[in-house]
Amino acid sequence: MSQVAWIAADWGTSNLRVWGLGANGKVIETARSDQGMGKLTPDQYEGVLNGLVAGWTDGPTDVLICGMAGAKQGWKEAPYLSVPCAPAGADAVSVQTSGALNVRILPGLCQIDPPDVMRGEETQIAGFLASRPDFAGTICLPGTHSKWVQIADGQVRSFRTKMTGELFNLLSEQSVLRHGMSDDWDDGAFTDGLKQSHDALNALFTVRSTGLLDPSKAAGARSYLSGLLIGAELQGVDTAVPVVLIGDGKLSALYATVLEQFGATSEIVDGEGLVLEGLKAAYAELKG
Amino acid sequence: MSQVAWIAADWGTSNLRVWGLGANGKVIETARSDQGMGKLTPDQYEGVLNGLVAGWTDGPTDVLICGMAGAKQGWKEAPYLSVPCAPAGADAVSVQTSGALNVRILPGLCQIDPPDVMRGEETQIAGFLASRPDFAGTICLPGTHSKWVQIADGQVRSFRTKMTGELFNLLSEQSVLRHGMSDDWDDGAFTDGLKQSHDALNALFTVRSTGLLDPSKAAGARSYLSGLLIGAELQGVDTAVPVVLIGDGKLSALYATVLEQFGATSEIVDGEGLVLEGLKAAYAELKG
Repeated sequence: MSQVAWIAADWGTSNLRVWGLGANGKVIETARSDQGMGKLTPDQYEGVLNGLVAGWTDGPTDVLICGMAGAKQGWKEAPYLSVPCAPAGADAVSVQTSGALNVRILPGLCQIDPPDVMRGEETQIAGFLASRPDFAGTICLPGTHSKWVQIADGQVRSFRTKMTGELFNLLSEQSVLRHGMSDDWDDGAFTDGLKQSHDALNALFTVRSTGLLDPSKAAGARSYLSGLLIGAELQGVDTAVPVVLIGDGKLSALYATVLEQFGATSEIVDGEGLVLEGLKAAYAELKG
Repeated sequence: MSQVAWIAADWGTSNLRVWGLGANGKVIETARSDQGMGKLTPDQYEGVLNGLVAGWTDGPTDVLICGMAGAKQGWKEAPYLSVPCAPAGADAVSVQTSGALNVRILPGLCQIDPPDVMRGEETQIAGFLASRPDFAGTICLPGTHSKWVQIADGQVRSFRTKMTGELFNLLSEQSVLRHGMSDDWDDGAFTDGLKQSHDALNALFTVRSTGLLDPSKAAGARSYLSGLLIGAELQGVDTAVPVVLIGDGKLSALYATVLEQFGATSEIVDGEGLVLEGLKAAYAELKG
């Protein structure tokens, strides 16, 4: 059995992925677990990691981790790097362990004004820039907390977090707007929502009243709400620079359609694998 | 014991208030219950009402109801009146009962474009207009679903519902923003929120990141969020017309302060009692 040269880990709030890499950079071993940061106290991380990589190594081995394991409430805090800066590779924090694993955690990024933070996405961005070092423009990672990131000269220049996904889940599942919503998708209702999205907060209740006044439109409420919130997120997008969408294919495709309507051209990049590329780039930087 | 001449009821989603009125309009009896619309099927309303007013009357008696009892999922649907129209008194819907109560339910109001609805607030507005028939301007009823109502010539000309209160509750109790929030009020943080409220949706995540980057500001997160959302609600308020705030004293006072900062003068009217005044006005109209 081939021994891994080093170990990469993406340790998020809910889940954990680990890769064992050979000296040539190839993935030899992989493992995943649901022991995310949200379920662990600091003294439990080492045991979880040892359990996942048991048998991968027979001596001292480097481990490089990104994500919420480096949050204040994680394994050990890796203080945020302040933008503008390169997205990954600097100021990894060493963690004391009792075994042969030499663990380091990558910091997230912060911005002072307007105040903002990210942890984990910076490593995906580093993975993207590893193959596109000259990219300049906007990277958007749509999701629960969408990130909009301005890139130039290999650096994150600035970024904003939008709570679109979390707001959509709260409103569609727990607010008065949930009544009568169907799970079916309705393109027309989504477009109607987009049209009102310049004033989305004030238009939220129309999701409900539209269906009350015209029951034939109740089924489209979910798509309408989605249009309102995604449209609001995209207000003011800079259409003069290229936009790269990183993430889940279906959501990225929806964002791409809206961006086109807003006059911006975008390119979709599959997010799967970018974290590992980012960890590899950061590890090379740390070793260099 | 004096018998009541007629019965007024405010039957909301969560609660129910009933008044027994003498021929001179004075309140002789009162009762309240938590058997709101949300807990009842249509066949249960009559029993609840009979239980509350038992002994108040000894013959056929008019009952006039406002609120959610007239919703589609209530006792009997009282279809919305479309604005512009007077806020109450027209098109009450009769309900078949098995006893001596002659029950009618007042309709709510609707607006076709932008789509909007209200049920119950129109009766408070009618109560206000009963003593201020010449009022022209804006009435705001702040709350879970704030109503902004344009009044002229004794009519509701148009209105908008803003989900400010529900959004505040969802975000402060169930979103990622709840972390580290204190219950203490912080005037400075509220003002900071107001300053960002022109772009409230995009600024929501700063509620969280501000506290992460400067723990001394974490305690103010709740007030900051309140400033963001109330400020967003008040964007574009018409400062050229008088604003009357109807509702809970503390919330109304907060809105009055913000309206002043936005250049609008407002007057606070205690909402307690206005529903009954509105029911009286509507009853006089129906009998007239």
